Amino acid sequence: MSIGVRRRMGVEERRQQLIGVALDLFSRRSPDEVSIDEIASAAGISRPLVYHYFPGKLSLYEAALKRASEDLASRFAEPHEGPLGGRLLRVMRRFFDFVDEHGPGFSALMRGGPAVSAEGAGSQDHVSATHALIDSVRQAAYEQMLSHLGVTEASPRLELVVRSWISLVESTALIWLDGRRIPRAELEVQLVHDFAALAAVSAGYDADMAELVRTMAKDEPADGPFADLVGRLIALGS
Amino acid sequence: MSIGVRRRMGVEERRQQLIGVALDLFSRRSPDEVSIDEIASAAGISRPLVYHYFPGKLSLYEAALKRASEDLASRFAEPHEGPLGGRLLRVMRRFFDFVDEHGPGFSALMRGGPAVSAEGAGSQDHVSATHALIDSVRQAAYEQMLSHLGVTEASPRLELVVRSWISLVESTALIWLDGRRIPRAELEVQLVHDFAALAAVSAGYDADMAELVRTMAKDEPADGPFADLVGRLIALGS
Repeated sequence: MSIGVRRRMGVEERRQQLIGVALDLFSRRSPDEVSIDEIASAAGISRPLVYHYFPGKLSLYEAALKRASEDLASRFAEPHEGPLGGRLLRVMRRFFDFVDEHGPGFSALMRGGPAVSAEGAGSQDHVSATHALIDSVRQAAYEQMLSHLGVTEASPRLELVVRSWISLVESTALIWLDGRRIPRAELEVQLVHDFAALAAVSAGYDADMAELVRTMAKDEPADGPFADLVGRLIALGS
Repeated sequence: MSIGVRRRMGVEERRQQLIGVALDLFSRRSPDEVSIDEIASAAGISRPLVYHYFPGKLSLYEAALKRASEDLASRFAEPHEGPLGGRLLRVMRRFFDFVDEHGPGFSALMRGGPAVSAEGAGSQDHVSATHALIDSVRQAAYEQMLSHLGVTEASPRLELVVRSWISLVESTALIWLDGRRIPRAELEVQLVHDFAALAAVSAGYDADMAELVRTMAKDEPADGPFADLVGRLIALGS
């Protein structure tokens, strides 16, 4: 920290700075291991001053989580142009960028939320607030998918395919973070293929799903991420 | 409750009875809504006597959860005989039986654990204990899958396919419980197909996975659950 000329920050500006500093620390190590002292030191202010802006680590954690959720949801936005496989692949890349940037914090959160023990964390309010944020991001992902599929009212089977694929994306990212033993670029393409495969399986039970999968496949270029999947499945079956 | 001739139960017998009664109540409604008074009444004993065996609702909840976990893990056991698709389908049926029997409790648990607020629930120890139990069931499912696939040391890609499919099974069950708008028998077959589809997608990146999928497909009968999947995918692609 520069200790030279320090401009006095406004309240909201200081709050935003603290959230940014905390999010950075919570992302690089498990949030349980990050102390208020560390946050204060990284922000270049005193511990009491942190408490002046946030009643405690829990509220700072929740604010950081809110910012991360908004950041993640914003990465789902993708122009409605070109084949669906390519759009989905670009979103997967941005999702893995996010996971990469926030690895330890993302893991701790998705594995049931970190302790952030001190003042009443693990309290039911905190657990509920955390889950509500995670659910809002999942819902944003779900709505983006439907809009790209050109669907306003999802059938139960389409809803199942999209929501269960979203959970597959989450678990794939968590497993990837645990050792990073598979190149992430491969997983990004694989998850696009997985969506096509899950939709195709479900299409066997539902005429609307079958129509949707046909429409998706029709738009795909020969060099797009969907292109070789069916051929590969045929090769395996022979 | 019969209030006629009541045999005096031993300590362990009484504990086991209370766990069974509690598990039944926690399964039929969200655990948050179940009171110690209700458990006492259903067991035909006084509230203080419940506290004699369990310090509180939280410890009773944890004991019930432990029994449910063991029950679920036991349902994964399947003879190593016949085609893999059929084995997997029988396991999926038993899994959905379990989900059906424990619906509200299963949902509450998997959606981040119920509050079970009273004495220090949501405490970090409780959250950790709950997650450790869930993880032990996932690990049992993972090990069963590997043993049926005839693999002792999983490659990173196989591990990813199996673990991410297990999370797909969980999320599919949770989505099913929310309204039961799709027949469960359909989802049981679909999840078997999903495993084949995810394995086939991954096989595109990994020679060992491709070999494994070929072996799986070879053993399948023409009327087994894997049988029409590839044909259906081919039909969609044409």
